[in-house]
Amino acid sequence: MNRYEEKELQQEMEQVEEYLSDYLRDPGYGGAVGNILHDMEMSKGKRLRPRLLLMASRFGKEQDPAGRERLCRLGALVELVHMASLIHDDIVDDAPLRRGFPTTQSKYGKDRAVYAGDLILSRIVQSLFRDGFFRVGALFGEAVESMCLGELGQMECRGREDVTVEQYMRNIYGKTAALCRLACQAGAVESGCSDSVQAQLEQLGINFGYMFQIRDDLLDFVSDTEEEGKLTQMDFREGILTLPVLYAMQDSQAKGRIIGLLRDAKEGVFGADQARNLKMIVTASGGLARAAADMEMYAERALQAIETLPDHGVSAVFRELLQAKCKVSAAV
Amino acid sequence: MNRYEEKELQQEMEQVEEYLSDYLRDPGYGGAVGNILHDMEMSKGKRLRPRLLLMASRFGKEQDPAGRERLCRLGALVELVHMASLIHDDIVDDAPLRRGFPTTQSKYGKDRAVYAGDLILSRIVQSLFRDGFFRVGALFGEAVESMCLGELGQMECRGREDVTVEQYMRNIYGKTAALCRLACQAGAVESGCSDSVQAQLEQLGINFGYMFQIRDDLLDFVSDTEEEGKLTQMDFREGILTLPVLYAMQDSQAKGRIIGLLRDAKEGVFGADQARNLKMIVTASGGLARAAADMEMYAERALQAIETLPDHGVSAVFRELLQAKCKVSAAV
Repeated sequence: MNRYEEKELQQEMEQVEEYLSDYLRDPGYGGAVGNILHDMEMSKGKRLRPRLLLMASRFGKEQDPAGRERLCRLGALVELVHMASLIHDDIVDDAPLRRGFPTTQSKYGKDRAVYAGDLILSRIVQSLFRDGFFRVGALFGEAVESMCLGELGQMECRGREDVTVEQYMRNIYGKTAALCRLACQAGAVESGCSDSVQAQLEQLGINFGYMFQIRDDLLDFVSDTEEEGKLTQMDFREGILTLPVLYAMQDSQAKGRIIGLLRDAKEGVFGADQARNLKMIVTASGGLARAAADMEMYAERALQAIETLPDHGVSAVFRELLQAKCKVSAAV
Repeated sequence: MNRYEEKELQQEMEQVEEYLSDYLRDPGYGGAVGNILHDMEMSKGKRLRPRLLLMASRFGKEQDPAGRERLCRLGALVELVHMASLIHDDIVDDAPLRRGFPTTQSKYGKDRAVYAGDLILSRIVQSLFRDGFFRVGALFGEAVESMCLGELGQMECRGREDVTVEQYMRNIYGKTAALCRLACQAGAVESGCSDSVQAQLEQLGINFGYMFQIRDDLLDFVSDTEEEGKLTQMDFREGILTLPVLYAMQDSQAKGRIIGLLRDAKEGVFGADQARNLKMIVTASGGLARAAADMEMYAERALQAIETLPDHGVSAVFRELLQAKCKVSAAV
């Protein structure tokens, strides 16, 4: 096979966009549901998960045009899982904005957002069966179960001062890694990869997911602007301790000060001063640097998972993607 | 085939309960999610939908023990769709009680209830694929889409004075008839019924669903106690006009008085006096009687849908079930 050109990936990603538009088309419902579907069709994400799926699928045998088209469709379905999960997450977070645009719940109310998310999930299920994705359908269900557990696990940890790194890792597995895993697995299975290659791509997905979530948690400290539509230190404000904070808390002096700030957050008196303070503590105690080192470790593990595989030109693209995502660590 | 004994149905329903317990088992999650699953396992519903599925499936060819077991499993999955939808409905309705027990959202919070519903849906999807229900999986997705549309449609109508009987029928199709249709369809398809028998059983399910929802809406007026864990005239208090009210409003004098009461409800001043008043208006204008006549018409249509089919002893059981459900009309 030729070097997997970025251009080829780009063309396939355009196909993914077309399928997404199809799935989000309003067949004439109108009203709020029509508007919600239209907003979703207009929202442009990074489409990271279909990208992972398409890249992983290059290691498989089924590379004829019809097979590639099926993979693009599957990529759209993985992105839809992500979109449905964002709608339900935004209800729980009471988030006013997502990627700089009003969330479904803020625009149409929590009640409609519950059913809008369910409606998207129901369309995914219909397509998985109608288009005969019988080999990967259960994996979709499994990923959604993990995602729910990750969010529920995070809720259990909210406001608590004794959260462990292990609990954090379990929660981010569900919140982020499970769906990256699904993307790589689905691409591997549907493209006819052997069991051992599937297992390697699964590891790639999981480690990519860990890397990606830790990156997000770092960005929450590093960026001063409302990057990606988020206020900084949002998690902490909501009582959620992320990896940089958890590492910082392993220093007993830092721990005491962070607990004080956490109590401020609970009492709703966490303003710009507290944010500056927390950033300073987390930086000085080495929490940011250790989290950044972990992020790079997971990026490395992701690449190691596939280093014994024939290249297909994809490994280089993966490497570039991972390096681009890790750029944040330069700022730490 | 022998007369389909009530005893045989009862034995199969016990099998359904066992599958339900399996699906709701906590594999060791613990915490809130463990408690939610446990509460769901303990909650006992009428299990009407698996009952419909098992009865419809008697018209099929596949009646060996393994086939019947698969149908029991499928019955449990249909009931799980119902249970997941109740969890999400209770979030929207802000309902404190369901069948006399605290709802998931009131006990564990709306946020956890969102993910608890999603988690159940994800388990349904996993089983549909793992257990090879490829012929009926898409129908599950379709039913859930209809259910979302019904609830969203009802929200659009909330508080409005110009709702039509057609809109009401569209909404209750989604709220109730779609899942009864799925139960009958899934039973028919999975048991190997011919296309034409499938279509007849589908009609049975739809009409059963209409009958059942209108019955519920009648009960909301007829019962003075908190029957089935619900306050009376709850829908009206929330600005939702059901069939008895819509029929009453076709009398212009009654309409004016009902609009006045609807405004009271909006302003939160709908108490016992208003409830008595509304019941009197809806009764005197013939709204209750007309809705009851419709309920009986749909029950009749449900039976007509299968009257040309070989009996298998099921028709009599269906007739008994429908007559039992229609008993409410005696009180009107």
